[in-house]
Amino acid sequence: MKEYKFDDYREILDEHISDFLPDIDHKSITLYDSMKYSIEAGGKRIRPVLLMASCVFCGGKVEEALPYACAVEYIHTYTLIHDDLPCMDDDELRRGIPSNHMVFGEDVATLAGDGLQSAAFELMFQDMLMYFDEPEELKKRVRAAYEISKGAGCRGVLAGQMADIETQSESCSHEMLDFIHLNKTASLMIASIRAGARLGNPTDEMLKDLTTYGENLGLAFQIADDILDVTGDEKIMGKKAGADSQKDKATYPQIHGLDDSRRKLEELTQNAIEAMSSYYDNAEVLTALAKELANRRY
Amino acid sequence: MKEYKFDDYREILDEHISDFLPDIDHKSITLYDSMKYSIEAGGKRIRPVLLMASCVFCGGKVEEALPYACAVEYIHTYTLIHDDLPCMDDDELRRGIPSNHMVFGEDVATLAGDGLQSAAFELMFQDMLMYFDEPEELKKRVRAAYEISKGAGCRGVLAGQMADIETQSESCSHEMLDFIHLNKTASLMIASIRAGARLGNPTDEMLKDLTTYGENLGLAFQIADDILDVTGDEKIMGKKAGADSQKDKATYPQIHGLDDSRRKLEELTQNAIEAMSSYYDNAEVLTALAKELANRRY
Repeated sequence: MKEYKFDDYREILDEHISDFLPDIDHKSITLYDSMKYSIEAGGKRIRPVLLMASCVFCGGKVEEALPYACAVEYIHTYTLIHDDLPCMDDDELRRGIPSNHMVFGEDVATLAGDGLQSAAFELMFQDMLMYFDEPEELKKRVRAAYEISKGAGCRGVLAGQMADIETQSESCSHEMLDFIHLNKTASLMIASIRAGARLGNPTDEMLKDLTTYGENLGLAFQIADDILDVTGDEKIMGKKAGADSQKDKATYPQIHGLDDSRRKLEELTQNAIEAMSSYYDNAEVLTALAKELANRRY
Repeated sequence: MKEYKFDDYREILDEHISDFLPDIDHKSITLYDSMKYSIEAGGKRIRPVLLMASCVFCGGKVEEALPYACAVEYIHTYTLIHDDLPCMDDDELRRGIPSNHMVFGEDVATLAGDGLQSAAFELMFQDMLMYFDEPEELKKRVRAAYEISKGAGCRGVLAGQMADIETQSESCSHEMLDFIHLNKTASLMIASIRAGARLGNPTDEMLKDLTTYGENLGLAFQIADDILDVTGDEKIMGKKAGADSQKDKATYPQIHGLDDSRRKLEELTQNAIEAMSSYYDNAEVLTALAKELANRRY
């Protein structure tokens, strides 16, 4: 069996990321163009990679995970498009190029975000239709899609965004900061990992350990992001440094200080690795990813 | 068996419309409040009623259709919230009360729309999980959800909204106007009818006839809307009359004239009724609805 590494998964994803966009009539082709623009703007592709790696870890096939991996990336991308809108974070740059609304206008960007969310669910249903003769396979896919819908929804990403909007940095409690991070960032990562697992044959123990891994990885990811916002290089990141403090966003370094943030990042990364320590097969890509994300420069 | 009328379905819907909103943490409760605000603002509830009526027409149970009926109304409501945003149609009034962003702000309204879309899919998956021991019932629900995702997506409502944004009224062709109406308005009605049918036991013939009914009803509905925008009473409609022409929207009366619009409305309504003419059981609510919508004043 082929052993996949992080970059292998990312290559597969990048090659197929636009395959599942719906056929759009030429009369509304701008919708397609704007969705494709943001989908193909690159990015780290961490959520879909986690989904594929987790699926393979649980004995599933990477090609069967691909539609769900793309769905997760469509959802993540839609949240970024809406997050960049002037009425939200008002970011002109994303992944080193102009944000969606800077190119297509706010109205089209709003629809492109909406379209990517609906496309994500539509493609998962289309995939399910192919497993109507295999009830057990069908159930795996319904479970996987449910995980994604939960992580992306009002008890996940959107809860985090809502709290993020309403919270001023100076009055942000530790508890609230954890809530924002866990929901805004970690929840869709956890959902990706659990969805990938659902597509394989996970034991209860594996699902539990993967969830622990995901929680720690997700929080570590956001703290690393917050640290980079203070210390990072704009050219490497493809977005403005210092943006969080300018926008009065509550961040880990701002609440806990930079030293404590680095210690916390290290601790969470170790926890993530520890959660996978009793497994030999296919866990390496997950532990390597945790280390890589902690040491990233963008 | 109880014979349901339009108002019975609407009452059931209104009674349960908020039951399926996700439990949202108190830290992001504004998201819940804003979603609930628009969901409970009333409206004609035509799509969910069509879904329930079509399900019963095809031998299904109204209580089993309810989650999907609510999902369709969540999706319809999200499109209205986003449509009302300043960057889109910039409408301050909806269903007789201030639009979502006028109460909660544009950022929250954007998230509330996103949240209602994700909640719609989440609740359908939750429903599916309850039918894991009945594969045939599970498949019905996957098919129903797929119909809804298609109608709501980039080959449905969003395609219509996109074309609507890009089309100036003076240069709008007949073909383009039909495209906009069919997608922006009819597609989610057709999807509701087909989804409801999927939850019952439709023959191919029934599914075909219901689709014809839905296409004609959906187009008739939009033409009636366009006519009301010219001739309607603001107080009864709960929104501004004449708004379409002010916004340079292509409408049926503006392209074809008021007389031709009324003729077309009559013709489409007759086609819808005709499509159901060979059925005796439970079709009456559908034909009565077609007549009522053609003669409505709001």
